[in-house]
Amino acid sequence: MSGIPHFWAVVPAGGAGTRLWPLSRSSSPKFLHDLTGSGRTLLQETVDRLTPLAADRFLVVTGQAHLAAVTAQLPQLAGGAVLAEPSPRDSMAAIGLAAALLERRDPEAVMGSFAADHVISDPERFQVAVTRAVEAARQDWLVTLGIEPTSPSPAFGYIHLGEPLPGLPEVCAVQEFVEKPSVETARDYLASGRFRWNAGMFVVRPTVLLDLLAQWHPEFAAALRQLAGDLDRLPELWGTLPRIALDHAIAEPAAAAGRVAVVPASFPWDDIGDFDSLATLLEQTDPGSAGGLSVLGDEELVRAVASTGLVVPASGRTVAVVGLDDIVVVDTPDALLVTTRAHAQQVKAVVTGLQESGHRDLT
Amino acid sequence: MSGIPHFWAVVPAGGAGTRLWPLSRSSSPKFLHDLTGSGRTLLQETVDRLTPLAADRFLVVTGQAHLAAVTAQLPQLAGGAVLAEPSPRDSMAAIGLAAALLERRDPEAVMGSFAADHVISDPERFQVAVTRAVEAARQDWLVTLGIEPTSPSPAFGYIHLGEPLPGLPEVCAVQEFVEKPSVETARDYLASGRFRWNAGMFVVRPTVLLDLLAQWHPEFAAALRQLAGDLDRLPELWGTLPRIALDHAIAEPAAAAGRVAVVPASFPWDDIGDFDSLATLLEQTDPGSAGGLSVLGDEELVRAVASTGLVVPASGRTVAVVGLDDIVVVDTPDALLVTTRAHAQQVKAVVTGLQESGHRDLT
Repeated sequence: MSGIPHFWAVVPAGGAGTRLWPLSRSSSPKFLHDLTGSGRTLLQETVDRLTPLAADRFLVVTGQAHLAAVTAQLPQLAGGAVLAEPSPRDSMAAIGLAAALLERRDPEAVMGSFAADHVISDPERFQVAVTRAVEAARQDWLVTLGIEPTSPSPAFGYIHLGEPLPGLPEVCAVQEFVEKPSVETARDYLASGRFRWNAGMFVVRPTVLLDLLAQWHPEFAAALRQLAGDLDRLPELWGTLPRIALDHAIAEPAAAAGRVAVVPASFPWDDIGDFDSLATLLEQTDPGSAGGLSVLGDEELVRAVASTGLVVPASGRTVAVVGLDDIVVVDTPDALLVTTRAHAQQVKAVVTGLQESGHRDLT
Repeated sequence: MSGIPHFWAVVPAGGAGTRLWPLSRSSSPKFLHDLTGSGRTLLQETVDRLTPLAADRFLVVTGQAHLAAVTAQLPQLAGGAVLAEPSPRDSMAAIGLAAALLERRDPEAVMGSFAADHVISDPERFQVAVTRAVEAARQDWLVTLGIEPTSPSPAFGYIHLGEPLPGLPEVCAVQEFVEKPSVETARDYLASGRFRWNAGMFVVRPTVLLDLLAQWHPEFAAALRQLAGDLDRLPELWGTLPRIALDHAIAEPAAAAGRVAVVPASFPWDDIGDFDSLATLLEQTDPGSAGGLSVLGDEELVRAVASTGLVVPASGRTVAVVGLDDIVVVDTPDALLVTTRAHAQQVKAVVTGLQESGHRDLT
């Protein structure tokens, strides 16, 4: 199994997943957890899904604090496949450094960057979409995957599709990236059929990525290329790199300059932003639980009477839920959350409150 | 301090408090717990409240399984003040045995029987009512205390007041005891002003109690008097006694025979039948929590966002509650309950379910 020749999978493994507290913690973020009941963590599923395409060509970029856990979860990866950032520096620095390393390592490389904490329940369709994206990337496009929206969600950015590319009828030019819209605007987007969710997935030749960066941030690109030639200087120079998201640094200006393409894709995708999303996801993967109570973990521990929603029994204790609809109960050894699917976004306020009151150890 | 001469306090300490699971367990029932945040358990508060009346004249009747815990919670009581039933045998056997023991011990005794798991937040008014009841009991009445209803509750039996007793204007004859009524009937009761809640409190001369029992259950009365003379035979004979409540065995037929009196009393009383009652009680004792969230335990452990109801953080873990009204969260080391005040009665179904599925250790 060698996958797509010269295709490298870059996996940024970062983000705290604050709205999934107390399951996800800063010390043990979302990507290190099995959130689907598959027996594999989100990080492991991400690598599993990419392995048919990338074989053993992986570069996982994570925080220093998670290096040991990430390495332990991915024993199949070669030494050096996991790169630790000295400190969080946003996505442009992390993905840009991976690009600079790959540019030196394999002049014919095409890289695909895929977050470690997303769920894609149809790997085959995902692989077809990435394969198409690689073809376009070899023609020097910065290629993104555009997820077909299943609802007018105001939680995601959208990609406005342009015309199909000459010779690549399955790939379109990107007219523009639009920030998270109102639900009303999102409804118009869906009705038009010309908008896709931006899942932050990019496929591109490393040199193209760095050259695009050099167009708007020449010093940033130069610093990344210098670092790639001398990784020993990482601790010293990393903190001087700009904190900026790849979308703002490159994708948006490059789209305006007509350099970005999109593969419209229809595989089921979720970034599991909160417990409401998680409940929806579990309902889909276990249709028996739809309209009932989903359990992530040992169902034997849950006693439900006239209740619907989501229970995560992660402390080994018995959890009884009586007479509650759309409830969310997350039971961990040192902290318990009780909320509703409709209030799932407000979990962040609890984490902020704990941090501000000197209980950072719980967050 | 010697209290009312010859007044003996009998405290039946039994009942599982199933609807207060997982706080109350068969291994550690309701009366062994501090449910008011006072720092004293319900059993200790019951004894504290009776001590000004009974001084050291106590007889606590409990199950064999709870003998050690009861004795440990009441170090001030003399040896022999705590009596263990070999097995649960309902209230007539427990209170009748206490009566038979006291009849031998003190011919002038008046006994008052008060359950160990009720809450009375105005001990002075309680003591005034008991003192009146003792006066009537000395005239050979079987005397009960009738609690002024604060709502048309269908959860309690009611006492129908008759005429005041000659020479004891604060005490009335009992016309009849009525079983738990419908809410509509209870409304009529409240409107009439002639009905009181039956809290199962009795004040009576032991000999009067046993003679009344002998009138309808002569063998039962004889067996109790025999046992009192030879407690060594308790293990052998206890299991042969009828299982019957004192109300059915004596109080109801005696009322029909014109032998029962009632002291109408207006002290605040609660039997804390479920978590809804407990929430109401805590709102009353801590007016600051009214309309908000009551916490029974360490408030520092509770993080509430836009929530009302009751949280019992009894495992030491942090409990976060977000966006839930009238929620009930009870967190113990091996089991967690999440319900609402309106569904508090259904907690019993969880306990039954656990018992039926081989998890008796959790109940």
